[in-house]
Amino acid sequence: MSIKRIDGGVCAPKGFKAAGMHCGVRKNHSKKDIAMIFCDVPCTAAAVYTQNKVYGAPITVTRKNISDGRAQAVICNSGNANTANLDGVEKAQMMSDLTAKALGIKSEDIIVASTGVIGQSLDMEPIAYGISELPKLLSVDGGNDAAQAIMTTDTKVKEIAIETEIGGKKVRFGAISKGSGMIHPNMATMLSFITSDVAISHEMLQKALREIIKDTYNMISVDGDTSTNDMVSVMASGLAENDEITTEGEDYKKVVAALMEIGLYMAKMIAGDGEGATRLLECRLTGAKDIPSAKVIAKSVIASSLVKAAMFGADANCGRVLCAMGYSGEDFDPSGVAVWFESAAGSIKVCEQGCGLKFDEEFAKKVLLEKEIVIKIEMAEGSGFATAWGCDLTYDYVKINGDYRT
Amino acid sequence: MSIKRIDGGVCAPKGFKAAGMHCGVRKNHSKKDIAMIFCDVPCTAAAVYTQNKVYGAPITVTRKNISDGRAQAVICNSGNANTANLDGVEKAQMMSDLTAKALGIKSEDIIVASTGVIGQSLDMEPIAYGISELPKLLSVDGGNDAAQAIMTTDTKVKEIAIETEIGGKKVRFGAISKGSGMIHPNMATMLSFITSDVAISHEMLQKALREIIKDTYNMISVDGDTSTNDMVSVMASGLAENDEITTEGEDYKKVVAALMEIGLYMAKMIAGDGEGATRLLECRLTGAKDIPSAKVIAKSVIASSLVKAAMFGADANCGRVLCAMGYSGEDFDPSGVAVWFESAAGSIKVCEQGCGLKFDEEFAKKVLLEKEIVIKIEMAEGSGFATAWGCDLTYDYVKINGDYRT
Repeated sequence: MSIKRIDGGVCAPKGFKAAGMHCGVRKNHSKKDIAMIFCDVPCTAAAVYTQNKVYGAPITVTRKNISDGRAQAVICNSGNANTANLDGVEKAQMMSDLTAKALGIKSEDIIVASTGVIGQSLDMEPIAYGISELPKLLSVDGGNDAAQAIMTTDTKVKEIAIETEIGGKKVRFGAISKGSGMIHPNMATMLSFITSDVAISHEMLQKALREIIKDTYNMISVDGDTSTNDMVSVMASGLAENDEITTEGEDYKKVVAALMEIGLYMAKMIAGDGEGATRLLECRLTGAKDIPSAKVIAKSVIASSLVKAAMFGADANCGRVLCAMGYSGEDFDPSGVAVWFESAAGSIKVCEQGCGLKFDEEFAKKVLLEKEIVIKIEMAEGSGFATAWGCDLTYDYVKINGDYRT
Repeated sequence: MSIKRIDGGVCAPKGFKAAGMHCGVRKNHSKKDIAMIFCDVPCTAAAVYTQNKVYGAPITVTRKNISDGRAQAVICNSGNANTANLDGVEKAQMMSDLTAKALGIKSEDIIVASTGVIGQSLDMEPIAYGISELPKLLSVDGGNDAAQAIMTTDTKVKEIAIETEIGGKKVRFGAISKGSGMIHPNMATMLSFITSDVAISHEMLQKALREIIKDTYNMISVDGDTSTNDMVSVMASGLAENDEITTEGEDYKKVVAALMEIGLYMAKMIAGDGEGATRLLECRLTGAKDIPSAKVIAKSVIASSLVKAAMFGADANCGRVLCAMGYSGEDFDPSGVAVWFESAAGSIKVCEQGCGLKFDEEFAKKVLLEKEIVIKIEMAEGSGFATAWGCDLTYDYVKINGDYRT
């Protein structure tokens, strides 16, 4: 069964409309700052949230709203995270109530999200204005506007739509995401809203989401910081009219495969668009003791400031890779490690049996000057494997985060 | 009993001589690259080493050499870490043997260390030349030369000497260190060679060193990367002629206090001289559940790329601090958190009950433009407290590490 990439985003599956606009949370009038996604019918819903102990007020409200496994709309602003302020939960609840009223649905069916500066009070006036206007703008062509409206320091709009067949029916999945800074492997590390018209139970949808998260969104690191506000949610309308998936059979596996496709695409998009990034880094690790160990080591490599800075400088420094593996906390035999740097320009082996090799520096530079770099690692511990994504550490990362609020 | 800061470094205690010179490991003739410290008599020795699974060949040899609690000399080169190469241990052993021969002492009494690039074979020719020349240069005025010779990307020479009284005798301690990149809280995070003329048993010296490490060297983070080659060693000659310390009485406590003074000084020096750093950051945390919890949270704040970049930009962003506390892995009530930024220019409260406060942005900027910034955090969990040190994340960090090898 094949998965086909199609045009569009969250509005590709049956039943969904979306919109994005500038409401005034941000000063810059040309930057959209509020997004709405709406489904004609109530959806089965699932979500995973940040593991940060300090989490945003919207997380509190969303977790409560979709605890019954049901949702019908998403409301999300950028520019202010509505976190670490005195009246955050109250205002997140207000966003939910206003959205429900504007759409004529229940407040418990709203997914509320905010992203932006932490620790400042959210001005409700522009939010209320936005929520009153958005329903008029909702359309099946509005996905891209919604994707734009949730961006913060992202430089690229992140949306995807795919089509597959489940239970003899054409089923679609769509998604929009925002990423950039504060991205680190720890459950739901950014905002991603996934839609589908598949018919599936809440339990199976939540299970499928958890399953793919650990190999996709949770394998990204931009700067090692786990944000307070991040979540990945899925709404499934059931309008594809396949037999409702309630067990882990073939159909369930197809849902997992589709969500995996979306997750992998977004993981790479988010990592490659990390704040100030000029390169997407992919660490492909094999031969670890087991899969959890492989994940920890691959993430340690991708998260190392020294590895990231070396990649920015196109410096084939295998010592940085070995060092980051070594402090991952996992036990292994360094003398069983081999390392390659790979890209569209070729492949170069820089380490064998834990020792640095002499290599053609000029060719290495050529390999590392490409936009997408693979750090391939072979270990001699067992059959554990993992892939993690990150980006280089650049002057612009420092610049962007040196003066984020002003 | 008071501890008095005195002039000098490793040669301040009785019995020690040192030297540093350019031997040719580095291309740059004006940069000293090999150091020797020698004591007239065999010393009691203690050391702590990197916890990185990938550790340097010199660590293997040094650990073996001082397993009997005895040492008489240090040999250390910069420019090449002699790590992750095929013949590393053999060459580290050769360094030990050559040094012993040149000084007329036993090879098992040599502390061997190397710092610099990982994964490249160490050229023994300049090393052998250096080891043959250094004994002629040894002098009680050579501590500063030795301190210079172990520097890598350090911008400041790091040495200290103190005097105290133990058992009615004048006792001195001295130290030299190198720091800069790859500094992260995890046991022995740089090179530091401490000397003393105190008379103490190996067991008590090792215990005292372990005790102070956890509040000093292990509370620093420059970039979250734990190096492969780092160690802190102490050699005590006994020439102060105090009664040998063999139990945990008053005299032992004075040794701990003296080592703590050295450790605190070096921790600040190393953090403030982190690669590319323009500011020393000190996180003073009180009110955590317990001390281990306080340490974890304080280190999480000081290690956050986003906190570090905000400090570089003199941006009083309390959200970054709260967020870094939240992903530390420790459990706590965010609504019990208060945060201040403090410096020579004043103190400004930016967070109360876990919520961002409105504050005078201009004054905040003034506070954060100083060279030494304190991030003061009060929590409402218990009586745990900790202090951690770090530095800001700057363009120069990226520049230095973007092309370290070439």
